[in-house]
Amino acid sequence: MAQTTPNHTQTVSGWAAHDTSGNITPYTFKRRENGVDDVTIKILYCGICHTDLHQAKNDWGITMYPVVPGHEIVGIITKVGSNVKNFTVGDRAGVGCLAATCLKCEHCIQGQENYCDAVQFVYNGVFWDGSITYGGYSESLVADHRYVVRVPENLPMDAAAPLLCAGITVFAPMKDNNLLDSPGKRIGIVGLGGLGHVAVKFAKAFGHHVTIISTSPSKEKEAKDNLGADDFILSTDPKQMLLKKRNLDFILDTVSAHHSLGPILELLKVNGTLVIVGAPDKPIDLPSFPLIFGKRVVKGSMIGSIKETQDMMDLCGKHNITCDIEVVKPDKINEALLRLAKNDVKYRFVIDIAGESSKL
Amino acid sequence: MAQTTPNHTQTVSGWAAHDTSGNITPYTFKRRENGVDDVTIKILYCGICHTDLHQAKNDWGITMYPVVPGHEIVGIITKVGSNVKNFTVGDRAGVGCLAATCLKCEHCIQGQENYCDAVQFVYNGVFWDGSITYGGYSESLVADHRYVVRVPENLPMDAAAPLLCAGITVFAPMKDNNLLDSPGKRIGIVGLGGLGHVAVKFAKAFGHHVTIISTSPSKEKEAKDNLGADDFILSTDPKQMLLKKRNLDFILDTVSAHHSLGPILELLKVNGTLVIVGAPDKPIDLPSFPLIFGKRVVKGSMIGSIKETQDMMDLCGKHNITCDIEVVKPDKINEALLRLAKNDVKYRFVIDIAGESSKL
Repeated sequence: MAQTTPNHTQTVSGWAAHDTSGNITPYTFKRRENGVDDVTIKILYCGICHTDLHQAKNDWGITMYPVVPGHEIVGIITKVGSNVKNFTVGDRAGVGCLAATCLKCEHCIQGQENYCDAVQFVYNGVFWDGSITYGGYSESLVADHRYVVRVPENLPMDAAAPLLCAGITVFAPMKDNNLLDSPGKRIGIVGLGGLGHVAVKFAKAFGHHVTIISTSPSKEKEAKDNLGADDFILSTDPKQMLLKKRNLDFILDTVSAHHSLGPILELLKVNGTLVIVGAPDKPIDLPSFPLIFGKRVVKGSMIGSIKETQDMMDLCGKHNITCDIEVVKPDKINEALLRLAKNDVKYRFVIDIAGESSKL
Repeated sequence: MAQTTPNHTQTVSGWAAHDTSGNITPYTFKRRENGVDDVTIKILYCGICHTDLHQAKNDWGITMYPVVPGHEIVGIITKVGSNVKNFTVGDRAGVGCLAATCLKCEHCIQGQENYCDAVQFVYNGVFWDGSITYGGYSESLVADHRYVVRVPENLPMDAAAPLLCAGITVFAPMKDNNLLDSPGKRIGIVGLGGLGHVAVKFAKAFGHHVTIISTSPSKEKEAKDNLGADDFILSTDPKQMLLKKRNLDFILDTVSAHHSLGPILELLKVNGTLVIVGAPDKPIDLPSFPLIFGKRVVKGSMIGSIKETQDMMDLCGKHNITCDIEVVKPDKINEALLRLAKNDVKYRFVIDIAGESSKL
C-alpha cells in the first residue's frame, strides 16, 4: 500500500498500474473519511477511456504511480456529508473527470470550473488535502458533492457510465457552438470510436445531417446502419475528400492519433468550425492555407462543467441516449486495454466493478 | 515578351521573376484594353510583400513564370470604362490582392468575395478573359473597378501602399473579432514586421493594451518607443512566457516562419482567440493540450473584402495611420527582396515605380 495521506482511513480495493508497462493489477489503498461536503459512492461500473491507457503508460510524462485510472464512474450513494443537501443515500450518481477546482476564480464562479487553472482530476490529481486522487477502477469513491451528477432513472447504469467523459466531451462543444436547438446543420465527425459514436447519437437527436470521416472503410456500413449517420467519407481517398470540399458547417475531431488537419479543414464551409477533443501526444499538423483561405476556425474543448454534465445527463434521459458498450470483469482490464489500443471495441469498454452483470 | 492573351494591346513596362532564382529583371508585357468595367491606373508606388518573395521563388509550387509580383498598388486613374460611375480620371486609387471573383456565390453576394472559391489574384492569377494576371511591379494596371479602392487625400501615397495587403490583412481579423469599438482589450501581436507594425498602430488607435511577442530582443525598445506598444514578451524566454500565461484576450500571429502555436496559445485567457495571418509553407505545430485546456480558438483570415478595405482606408485617413516604409527605386528590387528575406527592413519596402521620390 503506497503514498496515501496519513489521515485517510477507508480501505478500498481497486486496480492500479505501477509502471510504464501500463499493466493493471489489484491494488488496495485508502480513501479519506466522508467529509461534510462529500458523498461516498459504491461504484457499480467504470468506463475505460483512452486517457486511462495514456496515463497507465505515462505517455504524457505526468503519471504518478501507482495510478488507479477511471473517470467514467457510476454507482449508488452510500454516505452523505452534513453540508450535502442535493443527494441522499441510495441515489444513482455519476462522477466524471473533475475532483476539485479553486471554487473562486472567474471560471469556477461562471460555471466553467473545468477551465479553472487549479483543476484537479479524479485520478492522478492532487486533492485539497494534498492526497493523490485515485479513480474509478475501485470499489468505492469519496467525492465532493459539487463534482457529482445524477444519473436519470431510465438509463441503464453500465451504458450511462461513458457519458461522464466520452459523452460530455462531445456534448459541450455542440452546446457551445449552438447545435442543440438549430437542426439541419451539416456536421462531420472525425473518428468513430468511444467519443465519435456518441457524438453521432447526439447530432442525430438534435436533428442534424451527420457525416462520418474515417480511415476505416469497414465503418461505413456500421455508421449508417447501426448509428444512423447520413454520409461517410473515407479520409484516405483524396477523390472523396475533394468531392466534399466546403461541405460541412461543423466538424468534431475525436481522433487522438497523430494527423493533419489540412484535408479535414477543406471539408468545412467558409467560416466553418472544427473542434478538437482528442488529445494526440504529438502536435497536430495545421497547414495555414486551408485555415486562411476558408476563414476557418479550430477550437479546443475539454470535457464540460458539472452543470453541463447534468444538463447532458438529463437530455440523455429525455432522448434515451446511452453508449454502445462491452462490459468486462475487472480481471479482464488488461485485455480490454490491449484491445482498446487497437480500437477493437464497439464502442466503449465498461468495467463491471461490483459484479452486477453476473446477477442478471 | 511571353504568354500574353492575343487581344491584349497595351504595352507595359514592368519587372518580373523568370525562374526559381527569384531574380527580378525588367520585363515588357501587354495588358488588356480598358474595358467597360475597368479603370486604368498609372502606378506610383507598389509595396513589397513577403508573398512576392515566396511567389518569385515558387516556394508554394504554384508560380506561373514570368511572374510580375506586387499587390500593394497605389496610383492615379487615367482611364475609366463606361460602366464605372464611382471613379474619375485623376482619382487616387489603390488595388490590393484581388483581381476577379465569381460575383454570384454567397460570399461575393454577402461582401466576402475574398473567400469566393473562384477568387483570382492580382498577379499569378487567371483573369476572366483567360489571361494571366500581372501585378504592381509595373508602370500601369488595368483593373476591374469593383476591386479598386480610394486612397484618402491626407495620406501619403507611398506609405499608404502597404495598407492594401499588410494593412487589410491585420485589420479584417480585428474587425471580425469586434476589436474596433471595444477598447481596453489585451492584445498580443506575434512578429513585428510589415504586418505586425501596422497591427500595433491599429490596435493602439482602437484603444487596446498591446503586447509584442517576438524572438528578437532588439525589437523591445523599438516596439515601445517608436510604435507605442505597452508590453513586450521575448518568446524564446520560457520564464517570460510562463509569467504571462492566460494574460491576453486576442493574439494576431503574423509570422510566416515555421513555429509552434503551443507556447503562444498559453498566453491566451480561457476562450481567447488567436488569428493566423502569416502563411508558413510548412504546417504549423498545434499541440492539442493548450488548445483543449484553455478552450482556445485558432482562426485563419485572408486579406479582406473590397468594402472592408475601403472602410480600413477611410479609418486610416481619420486616424492618420500609414505604414513605416523604406522607398526603393525599381533597380533595387532584388536588393530589397534579399534584405526582406532577412527581415532587414523597417517595416515595408515600397517601390517608387514612377520616380516620384526624385521629384521631391
